[in-house]
Amino acid sequence: MLSDKTIALDAMGGDNGLKVVVPAALGILEKHPNIRLILVGDQAQIERRFRSNKAAKFIKTDRLRIKHASECVSMDESPALALRNKKDSSMRVAINLVKQGEAQACVSAGNTGALMATARFVLKMLPGVDRPAMISALPTTLGKPAYMLDLGANVECSARHLVEYAIMGSIVAQAAMPPGERPKVALLNIGSEDIKGTSIIKEASQLLNELKVVNYIGYIEANDVFQAKADVVVCDGFVGNVALKTCEGTARFILRGIKQGFKKNLFTRFCALFMLPVIGPIKKRIDPARYNGASLLGLNGIVIKSHGNTSVIGYMHAIEEAILEIEKNIPEQISHRVEEVLQNSGHEE
Amino acid sequence: MLSDKTIALDAMGGDNGLKVVVPAALGILEKHPNIRLILVGDQAQIERRFRSNKAAKFIKTDRLRIKHASECVSMDESPALALRNKKDSSMRVAINLVKQGEAQACVSAGNTGALMATARFVLKMLPGVDRPAMISALPTTLGKPAYMLDLGANVECSARHLVEYAIMGSIVAQAAMPPGERPKVALLNIGSEDIKGTSIIKEASQLLNELKVVNYIGYIEANDVFQAKADVVVCDGFVGNVALKTCEGTARFILRGIKQGFKKNLFTRFCALFMLPVIGPIKKRIDPARYNGASLLGLNGIVIKSHGNTSVIGYMHAIEEAILEIEKNIPEQISHRVEEVLQNSGHEE
Repeated sequence: MLSDKTIALDAMGGDNGLKVVVPAALGILEKHPNIRLILVGDQAQIERRFRSNKAAKFIKTDRLRIKHASECVSMDESPALALRNKKDSSMRVAINLVKQGEAQACVSAGNTGALMATARFVLKMLPGVDRPAMISALPTTLGKPAYMLDLGANVECSARHLVEYAIMGSIVAQAAMPPGERPKVALLNIGSEDIKGTSIIKEASQLLNELKVVNYIGYIEANDVFQAKADVVVCDGFVGNVALKTCEGTARFILRGIKQGFKKNLFTRFCALFMLPVIGPIKKRIDPARYNGASLLGLNGIVIKSHGNTSVIGYMHAIEEAILEIEKNIPEQISHRVEEVLQNSGHEE
Repeated sequence: MLSDKTIALDAMGGDNGLKVVVPAALGILEKHPNIRLILVGDQAQIERRFRSNKAAKFIKTDRLRIKHASECVSMDESPALALRNKKDSSMRVAINLVKQGEAQACVSAGNTGALMATARFVLKMLPGVDRPAMISALPTTLGKPAYMLDLGANVECSARHLVEYAIMGSIVAQAAMPPGERPKVALLNIGSEDIKGTSIIKEASQLLNELKVVNYIGYIEANDVFQAKADVVVCDGFVGNVALKTCEGTARFILRGIKQGFKKNLFTRFCALFMLPVIGPIKKRIDPARYNGASLLGLNGIVIKSHGNTSVIGYMHAIEEAILEIEKNIPEQISHRVEEVLQNSGHEE
């Protein structure tokens, strides 16, 4: 019996709210028979969505529940204000469910800053971890993912924070690798030479060279991330967010260019027929929906951030990321590893 | 007579040195009859390359000259050490030629940090400009370029530096636009809302809002750069460098994926024949060689940085960027605009 896997969904969060969350939830319940979901948000609105969907059978078996929340954090709200004033927001209540043990993870497509601030306030950080970080997988030429963090949780990081990210990212990458293999961890920099980069990155590199628990391989440049030269790429949240969005923007730019190219004339339209079997797999491989679901690491609980304007499929991926992290017990693993590092460096807790 | 357009090339710089610089130089002399070039580097090595190439006719008409330099700055050398110890490097001598008025611009594919430090030391900054910035064009969906700066000259920038970049970038973009149009300038950020970003970016945004000479439109996210939402995108050198390399890496990843997709079986190989007329133009549009040649702005002289491992075509583009900047007299334009800003803000020089 794995009936203890309950996930709370911030049903009001994101650009599309219930329109995406409800069908994604039903899809997950259909696909994963051992999962229970709690939809957090405006009860009346959620129930209205349920009527037009086939939610009844899941409600009957108690696999699908609603938890009413009277407020909603908007996408451009200040994280500090959301934390202070919206104590009954769908986001906050979903995180509370994790804190209270009623859910083992929560998923939100809402305001990233507010999600981080609220999760940190409610769940607290794991002992020894100073800041949460957002991690997500990127596609590489070898087919295996490259995990990148931080993707926007902290726009300004110290060297110590980057070291924390390296430790946490290593655990997430390890969880997806065959036992025995050690993930290669690199710091994102603007050159591979020692002299390159900011003083913070140079300091982090020195610290990581001395750290035994992380398989640190040095600097990586952004263009090499896709060559699978590292399994974990560490950077501050501003840089990571820009890299992620540049990647999305470039991919969309090229694929749109190809699409337009085919529309040029009758001959190219005919050519397009021969292109589908080739472009299809590529599009699937780099589909942002497939990589949706960034994990907020370092918290005493599992919190997954979905892209704000993701599709139903994308939101389902985010929920599946939560399932994986419950199975792998990521927070506990991080907690152990950080304790180990602190003990080795002489800072006993 | 436009015979005063002489460009000095750091012939030893870059990953490929003379192998790329010599054929590119000959290509430019062939294509632009009013340009003169000075190749700076090891005389014996350059002459050896000339023998196997058709350099004689250009040497005879004095359009191609060699300036001997006994040293070479390596790609991983510390900028400070290169500046102090290599006074006769090909890079330094090429920049000296601009200082002395023997050349109107110089091009180097060498060590970026050393190029910036040396150019700054030899040529000095324009009055009122604190730091040089690297600018280059990126392709967009609308076909027109988006200029991005800084791309790696300064890894750590203040708000004031970002404002300087906005002013300088605006002039470069204007030079490539129809008269009367004002380039839209945006700050690269991780969200479009006011609360997003580092304290430095927020401060720069405030300063730009007050500045009349720049058509500031607010924040831009990295994925929107390719949608031509701004003509000039301003960021610090670390972020810009990561964005540029992420863009290159993603493009290579997708195009390689398509190539591999076509190789899968006989049918897909057959399909590839129909693909060429469509993929060709796209590849050309995003070809890094086409966008090679980043300008170092803010200096009292024109210095163009070529990608370290560019092709002959790419290096030719870098030289052509130098030609354009000579024609448009970019340093003088920047100088005038900065003076104007300083006078308006009450800081007379």
